Amino acid sequence: MSNPLPRHQRPSRLNRFLFGTAYYPEQWTPADRENDTQRMAQAGMNVVRMAEFAWDVIEPRRGEFDFSLFDATIARMADVGIETILCTPTAAPPRWLTAQNPQWMRVDAEGRRMRHGSRQHVCTNNPGFRAESQRITRAMAEHFQDSPHVIGWQTDNEFFCHFSECYCDACTSSFRQWLRGKYSDVNTLNRAWGTAFWAQTYDDFEQIELPLRNRPTHPNPSQELDYYRFLSDAIGEFQRGQVEILRETQPNWWVTHNGLFEHIDYWKLRGDLDFLGVDIYPGFVEQPRDFSWASLKLQQCRAASGSFIVPEQQGGAGGQLLYLHQTPAPGQMRLWAYQAIAHGADGILHFRWRTARFGAEMYWNGILDHDNVARRRYAEFSQEGRELERIGTKILGTVVDVRAAILTQTDQDEAHATMTLGLPGPQEQTKLIFRQMLVSHWPAGLVDAADSFAGLKLLVVPSFVVMDEELAARLQSWVENGGILVASARTATRNRDNHVSAQTPPGLLGELFGVTVEEFGTLPTPLLNLKTGDETIQVGAGYEILRPRGAQTLATWSPASDGSPHAATGEVALTLNRFGQGAAIYVGSYFSEQNTAPLLALLREHAPIESLGEADELIEITCRHCLERRLTFALNHTGQPQQVRALPAGLELISSQMCGGVLELAPYGVAIIETRL
Amino acid sequence: MSNPLPRHQRPSRLNRFLFGTAYYPEQWTPADRENDTQRMAQAGMNVVRMAEFAWDVIEPRRGEFDFSLFDATIARMADVGIETILCTPTAAPPRWLTAQNPQWMRVDAEGRRMRHGSRQHVCTNNPGFRAESQRITRAMAEHFQDSPHVIGWQTDNEFFCHFSECYCDACTSSFRQWLRGKYSDVNTLNRAWGTAFWAQTYDDFEQIELPLRNRPTHPNPSQELDYYRFLSDAIGEFQRGQVEILRETQPNWWVTHNGLFEHIDYWKLRGDLDFLGVDIYPGFVEQPRDFSWASLKLQQCRAASGSFIVPEQQGGAGGQLLYLHQTPAPGQMRLWAYQAIAHGADGILHFRWRTARFGAEMYWNGILDHDNVARRRYAEFSQEGRELERIGTKILGTVVDVRAAILTQTDQDEAHATMTLGLPGPQEQTKLIFRQMLVSHWPAGLVDAADSFAGLKLLVVPSFVVMDEELAARLQSWVENGGILVASARTATRNRDNHVSAQTPPGLLGELFGVTVEEFGTLPTPLLNLKTGDETIQVGAGYEILRPRGAQTLATWSPASDGSPHAATGEVALTLNRFGQGAAIYVGSYFSEQNTAPLLALLREHAPIESLGEADELIEITCRHCLERRLTFALNHTGQPQQVRALPAGLELISSQMCGGVLELAPYGVAIIETRL
Amino acid sequence: MSNPLPRHQRPSRLNRFLFGTAYYPEQWTPADRENDTQRMAQAGMNVVRMAEFAWDVIEPRRGEFDFSLFDATIARMADVGIETILCTPTAAPPRWLTAQNPQWMRVDAEGRRMRHGSRQHVCTNNPGFRAESQRITRAMAEHFQDSPHVIGWQTDNEFFCHFSECYCDACTSSFRQWLRGKYSDVNTLNRAWGTAFWAQTYDDFEQIELPLRNRPTHPNPSQELDYYRFLSDAIGEFQRGQVEILRETQPNWWVTHNGLFEHIDYWKLRGDLDFLGVDIYPGFVEQPRDFSWASLKLQQCRAASGSFIVPEQQGGAGGQLLYLHQTPAPGQMRLWAYQAIAHGADGILHFRWRTARFGAEMYWNGILDHDNVARRRYAEFSQEGRELERIGTKILGTVVDVRAAILTQTDQDEAHATMTLGLPGPQEQTKLIFRQMLVSHWPAGLVDAADSFAGLKLLVVPSFVVMDEELAARLQSWVENGGILVASARTATRNRDNHVSAQTPPGLLGELFGVTVEEFGTLPTPLLNLKTGDETIQVGAGYEILRPRGAQTLATWSPASDGSPHAATGEVALTLNRFGQGAAIYVGSYFSEQNTAPLLALLREHAPIESLGEADELIEITCRHCLERRLTFALNHTGQPQQVRALPAGLELISSQMCGGVLELAPYGVAIIETRL
Repeated sequence: MSNPLPRHQRPSRLNRFLFGTAYYPEQWTPADRENDTQRMAQAGMNVVRMAEFAWDVIEPRRGEFDFSLFDATIARMADVGIETILCTPTAAPPRWLTAQNPQWMRVDAEGRRMRHGSRQHVCTNNPGFRAESQRITRAMAEHFQDSPHVIGWQTDNEFFCHFSECYCDACTSSFRQWLRGKYSDVNTLNRAWGTAFWAQTYDDFEQIELPLRNRPTHPNPSQELDYYRFLSDAIGEFQRGQVEILRETQPNWWVTHNGLFEHIDYWKLRGDLDFLGVDIYPGFVEQPRDFSWASLKLQQCRAASGSFIVPEQQGGAGGQLLYLHQTPAPGQMRLWAYQAIAHGADGILHFRWRTARFGAEMYWNGILDHDNVARRRYAEFSQEGRELERIGTKILGTVVDVRAAILTQTDQDEAHATMTLGLPGPQEQTKLIFRQMLVSHWPAGLVDAADSFAGLKLLVVPSFVVMDEELAARLQSWVENGGILVASARTATRNRDNHVSAQTPPGLLGELFGVTVEEFGTLPTPLLNLKTGDETIQVGAGYEILRPRGAQTLATWSPASDGSPHAATGEVALTLNRFGQGAAIYVGSYFSEQNTAPLLALLREHAPIESLGEADELIEITCRHCLERRLTFALNHTGQPQQVRALPAGLELISSQMCGGVLELAPYGVAIIETRL
Repeated sequence: MSNPLPRHQRPSRLNRFLFGTAYYPEQWTPADRENDTQRMAQAGMNVVRMAEFAWDVIEPRRGEFDFSLFDATIARMADVGIETILCTPTAAPPRWLTAQNPQWMRVDAEGRRMRHGSRQHVCTNNPGFRAESQRITRAMAEHFQDSPHVIGWQTDNEFFCHFSECYCDACTSSFRQWLRGKYSDVNTLNRAWGTAFWAQTYDDFEQIELPLRNRPTHPNPSQELDYYRFLSDAIGEFQRGQVEILRETQPNWWVTHNGLFEHIDYWKLRGDLDFLGVDIYPGFVEQPRDFSWASLKLQQCRAASGSFIVPEQQGGAGGQLLYLHQTPAPGQMRLWAYQAIAHGADGILHFRWRTARFGAEMYWNGILDHDNVARRRYAEFSQEGRELERIGTKILGTVVDVRAAILTQTDQDEAHATMTLGLPGPQEQTKLIFRQMLVSHWPAGLVDAADSFAGLKLLVVPSFVVMDEELAARLQSWVENGGILVASARTATRNRDNHVSAQTPPGLLGELFGVTVEEFGTLPTPLLNLKTGDETIQVGAGYEILRPRGAQTLATWSPASDGSPHAATGEVALTLNRFGQGAAIYVGSYFSEQNTAPLLALLREHAPIESLGEADELIEITCRHCLERRLTFALNHTGQPQQVRALPAGLELISSQMCGGVLELAPYGVAIIETRL
Repeated sequence: MSNPLPRHQRPSRLNRFLFGTAYYPEQWTPADRENDTQRMAQAGMNVVRMAEFAWDVIEPRRGEFDFSLFDATIARMADVGIETILCTPTAAPPRWLTAQNPQWMRVDAEGRRMRHGSRQHVCTNNPGFRAESQRITRAMAEHFQDSPHVIGWQTDNEFFCHFSECYCDACTSSFRQWLRGKYSDVNTLNRAWGTAFWAQTYDDFEQIELPLRNRPTHPNPSQELDYYRFLSDAIGEFQRGQVEILRETQPNWWVTHNGLFEHIDYWKLRGDLDFLGVDIYPGFVEQPRDFSWASLKLQQCRAASGSFIVPEQQGGAGGQLLYLHQTPAPGQMRLWAYQAIAHGADGILHFRWRTARFGAEMYWNGILDHDNVARRRYAEFSQEGRELERIGTKILGTVVDVRAAILTQTDQDEAHATMTLGLPGPQEQTKLIFRQMLVSHWPAGLVDAADSFAGLKLLVVPSFVVMDEELAARLQSWVENGGILVASARTATRNRDNHVSAQTPPGLLGELFGVTVEEFGTLPTPLLNLKTGDETIQVGAGYEILRPRGAQTLATWSPASDGSPHAATGEVALTLNRFGQGAAIYVGSYFSEQNTAPLLALLREHAPIESLGEADELIEITCRHCLERRLTFALNHTGQPQQVRALPAGLELISSQMCGGVLELAPYGVAIIETRL
């Protein structure tokens, strides 16, 4: 199978667009449960997610199983056409298990052992707990293996949402084992970690400890990077133990997991799954100002997964201990659901059916209020349901059309974090660049560094400090074939061991960019500007003095407005190198709040990207397509009516009305224009 | 005994107004002590408090007692007419005790065991320490049982002033025991705690641990609320062990304790005492701006205790490790003493006689300076002493006249704290409401929810989230009989298990207020206003959309000045429901810095409260009364002369001059007008 | 030897001015090392510092030594005229040692045991580690004892740079031992610590624990002060164990250590050394605004050491985990080297030769970049080297000329810190006073309280709370002989046990200043001004009301501009007392940002100090002198050309041109004018 589709361009294999909610029958009375089914069906639900935290219900005492609640609930749901996604309930091990195994509880960086009473309290690297996790998974899988109404599984819940690191003895052992697997002999590790610094040489893998900052001072950055790689691999291994059981028990089930959180390389984690899920709560940020926060999270999922679903989509104001989101305005909850779809989601489950009356999330509002009265959120949810019933088949099979991409790679974020130097990392710059692409209505998205770059026109590499020959070669070959590549400061200055390169930056990419970096420094205050032919662009948090080795100069450094002298004044700041059929642009600074808009405008001169439409910055426009059709999504994140122009002509799917290129969007309104190809 | 007085209206049973200081003879030489007695008498002192931290002096080695220092000091004091209050010295257990029992030391939330070297280092729930606490109490009680000069006792010192929680094993056992007492069987507890959430079901009381936040994440809010109730009950039990010994040894002694600190339900703690004490240091806040801070603390004591004393009244700038209060201006220390009396104190002991020359409080200034020279603070103290000698009998027997009350209940504060959601709780709103009542010169005060509401005209319930049928019934009956009740947002939305109610808010009070709440949300920025007939009042931190069910509308929601749309616009915000002979007003928002003054003004239209006088906002006016007389206190918190008008005519007690309704107060001046009834 | 020179005036005994870098051959390949030697020699280096963290290289397994790398490197250096300073490598004990002795790792205040993986992880009070430290020191000393190219040693590295306190059991034992040595019997300790406060009496030294704040509350301030004295003595003892071995093995070696960090009394630590070193990184503060930060650090070293060297002088932007200094401007790195010399340094080693490519300091830039290319920093370094080759002999033998001094004493800083009360301590005031003296171009410096005051004209004692009879007598005698002494608020209010004095302040200095303090208070907002004849000076953070007892009044308190009343208004604030041939000036407040300049101007009227020249505030002027010559240093900290006037006429050493009293300094320029005496 030569030339397969990039992963991020692969469509869903689901046979219908999923719509539903998370549901916790164990928290309600039989009467409540009876009453719920009908209202769910009326709202157009076709799926529920259950059993996420129900281990204590399913196995009230070790080895004694009771599936009656879920058997009955699944059956009742099936009666009204609602299928079930089950969860392995391992995020909340029951008390009989933790009481017998207190040493399985996680330990934090302060050496504090976790306690029973919330969730994610048991270490997923503990061999004993792994065995238990597989035992309950097998018991559930075997029980439900022939249920026609169980269509798929979610593993655990939100790995690392509260807790990534654990410092228990089992983790130390696992880390050593992982290192043995990677390095084979300890002298290889000594070299890879640069233990010649501060006399850290190890004689044996058994001497290695988990790194901790300030115990007593700065840790070894190579050790730290390996530790975070280990964390991600280890949770993948924990999940694999469950996935293998599910697959061997019932091959028809699909398996997913709901992310996204820090310290997991989802590109790798996705390897064991059919697709990823991402939980989306736009209420965590200020709306509409930060509308692109959710878009970015969705794109991160898309980059790792290709097609994906949203197992938890905001269903009301979420609240915990010390905060409560603003209540979504009328229409805003539905808008956010369509935002997820616009960025590639093929299923939406709102969280949650009815607000809990007890427990730590009793103010995390669901579709129904505490008093079980259906109010405006239920009405809006039902509207979504009915619309998706109608247009879901149009969406299914399409993928997001991405022309302008930002490269992403977990290893880069981790490497940056081991030694930020106070400088902006890839994520921080990605946030700015992606937002700017969105407000410019570009067909933009994220692409994982491990994926194929086929089909992209523009690729931005935001300060990827780490570079290896394989990635360098792939980038070079993509540019040779016509791509426009952009990199910002400090790209390709370290190797995968997190050592600074002995080559003059940008090291392995020096030939591609046709430039070397003579000097680098921070700029806590803006002492410099980037001066292009006729424009002055404010610098980011650092400057590089470039020496073109074949590249042409696009901008030089000029003094800031107050005229303070600086060593970089007059030196080269920004270059473009023609390479094969493409070009490589090197930005000797960081993307920042101030300079991202003018820098992208400048890039566009060299990489023509067509906008998807014309509208206010708070109108989001994306496109999903397949061989047969293009769907142009227009989303109004504001509370005012808005006009969108320069759209393709076609059928607006929600209203079933033809659109001639100009659209009026109601407050928080949504439109999807279908163009047949 | 039908219709007893509300506790907060019960007068003192002391036979004279107490005036004196805390005194630590163990810190001074015999010559110092000799010299002190005379100067104390000259200043008008009639009482000293001693032995607060003298366990090591009284029992230098286990079982070897030496009372000589205190015998001699009590006798010397008695010679000049000064009586003694003794303390159980259990806040500072001696080193021989802690050295032998290192496992009795408290353990904090981080698992750190406390050390000898300061105070409050031993766990009061440890059975071994409780036995020791009772042993030293008995030894002291028996030794002093026939001393005619010892009139009363203070238990320990400032329970929970540094430390409320302790996480030692003894605390875990005690908590389990307390839960057994409350729930009898563990399934009752499972239901009460909602353990169906996050699979927390317990099989046995022995499986329960003390709750801790972020171990690894949000705790169970029902467990947390029970834990704080336990903390309060447990310290009460510790105290009871001492009180019972004191009472059985010498029934003539009265017993008190000096508060007030967090996580103690003083209404309950007071049950074992004759009256409470409250330590008052107005230097902790900015004066005169925050003058009402001390008034509120005094009212909290009054609400729990009825008559009370001030065992520690600021005697100079207090200072510790990292701060030093501003030095009180001439007259200000005396003003603060009268402020305590104006809010119900029947005894004032300044802290402390002479400033310590060593130890952690060596900059906590007393009446005399380090160099033992009597300067302006001694002069002012003596003035107080001479005045109170003269007018103390007039004060004794009177209680504070309260017409406008704010309801208070420890359980409400604790329930709010388990899940604040970032919203203002009862205490935060009480602070604003009480201050506004004071600057309006209303006859205002706090009343505990467990007390009788007899005699009150207006009662404000500031967001009491927890409601039970008993309290609901008492509130309803009080309104029926003519009371004007006011409640703010989220009142009566949870039950005593800290579960959100299944009833539409305000749940058990729905009929009384004649209203239901359709929607609730936060308002981080003021998107809304309360619009009454002709006035616009800024909203607090949240909004509720009300549906009148019999109540009349007093205000609706209107858009904020910038005109942003909001779902609540035009909806009902404030209602009044006639009920029996009274009325119940529901405020669909929180009392805030901006809206408290206009809201109280609006309330006054419905609950006519007469002011005690007319004056600047920084002039405090209160009234104490009994059957025979009314005493109107006027306190000038400013450094400028001030006029007070519309006072009752009568004799000004300090100057012994008649007042015809208008008074001129000197800077920091005080007046007390007596009106005979 | 009567009347020896004050320590701070003693010249160097080095036979040449040292110039070089720190060098870590273990981090580089043989080819790198080969190539380095020549470039070092070309830059004018005459010394390298090596083996600082090389224990694992020298002793890869316990008892197996391998000196080959250092033998070869020392020899190769010697071939080009570069001598070697070696380090005891005890700041980074190897893994085989820590793996076998996990209980030797330090323990922090939270009870967390440190881990292998960075440095300074082993407790220097552990007897086992002390033995190991002496074993490796002896092994190295014996191996290199006859090497003619090893000229001296640095002990360990930067004691207490990450970590001062340790709470392991060995530390507890050591503290008890230290207390036994100081107090002999525990009752003496009880009195000295004021254990009568809060019942803290100890029966035995074994009952004493290391003090910790908030366990559960404020510690005993006398115990805390003793603890910090112990910390300093203990690290001195650790060092002495190494120094004795070095001295007995090869008496020709000199021994130094590189400071300066908190909680070490360098005056005492210097007792075992030939001279001190101080590591200087001006990039830690904002330049040029805070240029005096480095000057102050240099003066602190000078005050403790007399002649000293800079083992680590900034060699490029330093960066760690979360920060990266600004890159020094062209010329600025050299300027900072001369700044060190101007304040008394007799040797400069830049840190470091080439930037590391791995490890926690891989962004701590050295003279050469990661890619081993010699750029502008190497050129500037070579310029320094060539200049110092030429003028180093002129510098050697001179000492800094100090007329206006600020008294310094570690005990004062520690005593202040035990109980700051939020008030400015000696260091905070010293920083302001010294900066003001520098910008006024006074011949200024720091002098340790243990040193002789001979030769000084003006001595400022910034709020030395602690006073003893010996220091009081020496100050009195110095004033009697003509000195002008200045003290600020709270001076001499405690004794060496950290008890507040029973005498009226300023206690032991009352006669000398001819004044007593009637009242003291804080001033969080400036309610007062100091009013001299015709000038109004803003007050510092507190006020004292003075009662002259022979002194004349220089200023009184006047109300602040808003006219608020205050008890101190009209009272005496500033006094001058003629005493013998000198005078003692008492400032009843603290030196502050606002008042330091006018206060120093006022002091100068009474203590005529001649400026060293006239120039902008950011031009630093100092003088070094000996019997034969005066060297006037002028340093331009700005990026603009600057003129300096009123200089002595003489030869400018760097340019070899005569200067007639006026100089033009280039941006970041330096000049040294030699005047023959």
